[in-house]
Amino acid sequence: TVNLSRIKEMLDVSSSIGTLPQGGLCRLALSDEDKQMRDIFIKWLQDLNLQVRVDDFGNIYGRREGKDKDAPAVVVGSHLDTQPQGGRFDGILGVLSALEVIRVLNDCDIETKRPIEIVNFTNEEGARFEPPMLGSGGVAGVFDKDFILNLKDSSGKRFGDELQRIGYAGSEENRIKDMYGYVELHIEQGPVLERENISIAAVEGIQGITWLEVRLTGQADHAGPTPMSMRKDALVAAAKMIVAVQQIAKDIDDTATTTVGRLSVAPGAVNCVPGEVVFTIDIRHFNDIVRERAVESVLEKISTIAAVEGVGIEVSKLWEIPATAFSQHIVKHVIKGAEMSGYSVRNMVSGAGHDAKYMNHIVPSAMIFVPSVGGKSHCPEELTLWEDIEKGANVLLYVVHELAQE
Amino acid sequence: TVNLSRIKEMLDVSSSIGTLPQGGLCRLALSDEDKQMRDIFIKWLQDLNLQVRVDDFGNIYGRREGKDKDAPAVVVGSHLDTQPQGGRFDGILGVLSALEVIRVLNDCDIETKRPIEIVNFTNEEGARFEPPMLGSGGVAGVFDKDFILNLKDSSGKRFGDELQRIGYAGSEENRIKDMYGYVELHIEQGPVLERENISIAAVEGIQGITWLEVRLTGQADHAGPTPMSMRKDALVAAAKMIVAVQQIAKDIDDTATTTVGRLSVAPGAVNCVPGEVVFTIDIRHFNDIVRERAVESVLEKISTIAAVEGVGIEVSKLWEIPATAFSQHIVKHVIKGAEMSGYSVRNMVSGAGHDAKYMNHIVPSAMIFVPSVGGKSHCPEELTLWEDIEKGANVLLYVVHELAQE
Ligand SMILES: NC(=O)NCCC(=O)O
Ligand SMILES: NC(=O)NCCC(=O)O
Repeated sequence: TVNLSRIKEMLDVSSSIGTLPQGGLCRLALSDEDKQMRDIFIKWLQDLNLQVRVDDFGNIYGRREGKDKDAPAVVVGSHLDTQPQGGRFDGILGVLSALEVIRVLNDCDIETKRPIEIVNFTNEEGARFEPPMLGSGGVAGVFDKDFILNLKDSSGKRFGDELQRIGYAGSEENRIKDMYGYVELHIEQGPVLERENISIAAVEGIQGITWLEVRLTGQADHAGPTPMSMRKDALVAAAKMIVAVQQIAKDIDDTATTTVGRLSVAPGAVNCVPGEVVFTIDIRHFNDIVRERAVESVLEKISTIAAVEGVGIEVSKLWEIPATAFSQHIVKHVIKGAEMSGYSVRNMVSGAGHDAKYMNHIVPSAMIFVPSVGGKSHCPEELTLWEDIEKGANVLLYVVHELAQE
Repeated sequence: TVNLSRIKEMLDVSSSIGTLPQGGLCRLALSDEDKQMRDIFIKWLQDLNLQVRVDDFGNIYGRREGKDKDAPAVVVGSHLDTQPQGGRFDGILGVLSALEVIRVLNDCDIETKRPIEIVNFTNEEGARFEPPMLGSGGVAGVFDKDFILNLKDSSGKRFGDELQRIGYAGSEENRIKDMYGYVELHIEQGPVLERENISIAAVEGIQGITWLEVRLTGQADHAGPTPMSMRKDALVAAAKMIVAVQQIAKDIDDTATTTVGRLSVAPGAVNCVPGEVVFTIDIRHFNDIVRERAVESVLEKISTIAAVEGVGIEVSKLWEIPATAFSQHIVKHVIKGAEMSGYSVRNMVSGAGHDAKYMNHIVPSAMIFVPSVGGKSHCPEELTLWEDIEKGANVLLYVVHELAQE
C-alpha cells in the first residue's frame, strides 16, 4: 500500500508554487510557476530512476522499464497546471499519486511485465490557452500541432513561444506511443461522493461539452444624455441572455449544465452605455443528443433576445467534444481494487473533461475519483481529505499493477 | 466672428493624438497621449501670447490680461482627455474654441476690461481615474488634494505619480482664483437638439448623479460537475440585477437613466462558475429627490435578488453630486448671443456632468451646447457638424466678450 506521508510531502511542495493569498493556486500553463513545478517534477522522476522525456507539446514523461521492453506501456498521470484561482488537488493529485505508485513498486522490488509511464499533460485546464486538454489532445491527434503552437493567451502570447521560453519545447518523437492502458486518479470536483458518503468512483464516462463564444454589438453612448428608449445596450442584452441560458439547463434535468464563465464589457467605463460584450457559454450533458438540443435552444433564445434588444450577435464554437465511454475492462479493475480494500465504491459519469477523455481516443482508459469536500473545485476552498487521498492512491496502485502484469 | 478653418486645423491635430483604428480617440487622463496633447496645447497658448500656468492637479491655464489687471477673470475652457473609446469633440471642442475666441480678440486688437483665462481641466472623463471632473472638482474644493493625488487607475497607478511622470505636476498657487464667470462650449452628447433641429442650447443646469459599485460574492465552482441547483453564481445574480436596474429608470420618466457600464467577473474562465462579480451603476435625474428615490429602489431591488440567489452583496458609493442650477445671468447672454446671430436656441438641462458643474460652486457658470449627430458620444461615431461648431464658437465669442467687458 501507498505511504500517505510521502504524498503529503509532495503536495506541500506543489502547494507552495503559485500560492494565492486566499490559499489556492494560480499556476497557469507555461507560466513561470508552471516551469518551477515542472523542474521539481523532473527531479522527482529522476530520483525514482525513471527515464525522462519531453514532447513537442511540453508533456513530460517518466518511464519505468518492464520485463518486456517492447510490451505496450501502462500510462498513468494527469496535469500540474491550475485555474487562475484554482485548488491544490485538481490534476496535481493524479500526478503525485503516480509518483507514489512507482515508489511503492521500487520499494517492493517489483518488476512488472509492461513498462509504466508517468505523464504530466500541458494546459489541461484551458484557463490560459483555450480549449482545455491541449497536451493530451495533441498526443491523441485531436488537435493539429500548428493549431496548438499558434494558440494565444488573452495577452496575445503564443503557446509555442511560451513553451520555448520556459524551456519545455521537446521533440515529436518523444510523444507517448505503444500504450496498453491509461489510468488517471482525480478529485470528483462535484458533490456526489461526499453526499453519498462513498470513497471511490469508478468513472465510466465523461459528459459531452460545447463551448460557445458570443459577441454582442450594441451602441456605445454617454450614460447621461442618452434616454433609456434610445439605447442599444449590449450588457442589458447579455444580462437577459445569461438569465435565459441558465434556465435552459434547469429545464432539462439535474445533470445538464449551462455556464457563462467569462464576460468582458467595452468601453467598460461607469458612464458609458456598453457598446460591446463578449461572453462564453459552457454546455454539458452525457447524452450528446440532449446536449445538441440544448445548444440549439441556447442559440435560438439568444438570437431572439438580440433581435428584441436591437443588438448585433455573432456566435462562434470554441470547442466541442462528444461524450466519452471509458474502457469497461479498466473500470472493472477500479471497482475490484476498491472492493478488495473494503472501500465503498460506485460508478459515475464525470461532469468535467479530463486528459483521459482524449487519451481514450488512442488507448483504453478510465479514471478513479475521490470525494471533493462540499463538491468544490476550481477555487481555493477545493479540498480532499487525507483518508480519501490514501484510498484513491491505493486503488491507483492496484489498477496500475494489475494492468502492468497483464 | 470666428474663423472655422482655424478650429478645423486644431481639431485635425487633436484627432491625430490617440487615434483608434475605428476612428475615435483613446486619450485617457495623464497617459502619454494626454501629455502629447498638453504639450501642443501649451504651444498654442504661447503662440497667442498667453501667460501659461499649471496647477497642482495638472490643470493648464493661459491668461490674457485685461485693462483692469485686478478685475476678476472670465474663464473659458473644458477638457482634452477622452474616454477609452471616445469621440473627437467631447471636451476638446470647448478648449479649441476658447483658443479661437482669443485669436479673434487678438486679431481685432480688442483689449477687454477683464482678464480672460483659458483652461484645460485634468481627468474630466473619469474613465481612467474615477470619479470624473477631478481637475475642476479639485479647484472648486469639492475633493481634497490628497484624495485626488492618491486615486489609482485600474492597474494601480497613482494620479500623483502619473502627473509627475508626464511632467504636469504644477503648484497650488497656480490654481485659478479671482473669477467673474465660467463659460463652457460642449457637444450635447444627446439627441434633443438634432431631433428638434435647433443649433444652440443655453444650458441652465445639470442632472444629479450617483455612482454605485456593487460587489457580489458567490461560490467559484467547476462548471461541469456542479449541478445548477447547488451553485452560487455571482454572474447570474448580476444579470438579474442589470435587468432590474435598467427597468427602474424606464419606470420613472423619459429623463431618468440607470446604466451598468463597468463589470468584471472572477475567476473569469469558461469552465468556472463565477465566484465574484463587481459592477457599477450610474443613476441620474434633474430632481434630486427623484434620483434619491431611484437609488433607494435600486438598493432594495439588488438586495432582494442577492438574497434570493444566495450571494453576498456589498455596495459602495463611488460618487454623488446633486443637480446644478447655472447662472441665469450667463444663460441669458447665451440666448442673446444666439438670437443676435439668428441661430435657433432653446434652454436645456444636461444629462452629462461637466467641469462647469464644479466651477459653478465657486463662480457663476453656464454652458453652450451644440448638436450631436444621432445623439452619439463616448464612442468613435461621435460627430458635430461644422456649421454647428461655427455657430457654437460664435456664441462663445459673444458671451466671453460680453462678460469680459462687464
Ligand atoms: N478537470 C478539469 O477541470 N478539466 C477542464 C476541462 C473541463 O472544463 O471540464
Ligand atoms: N461630459 C462628460 O462626459 N462628463 C463626464 C461626467 C459624466 O459622467 O457625466
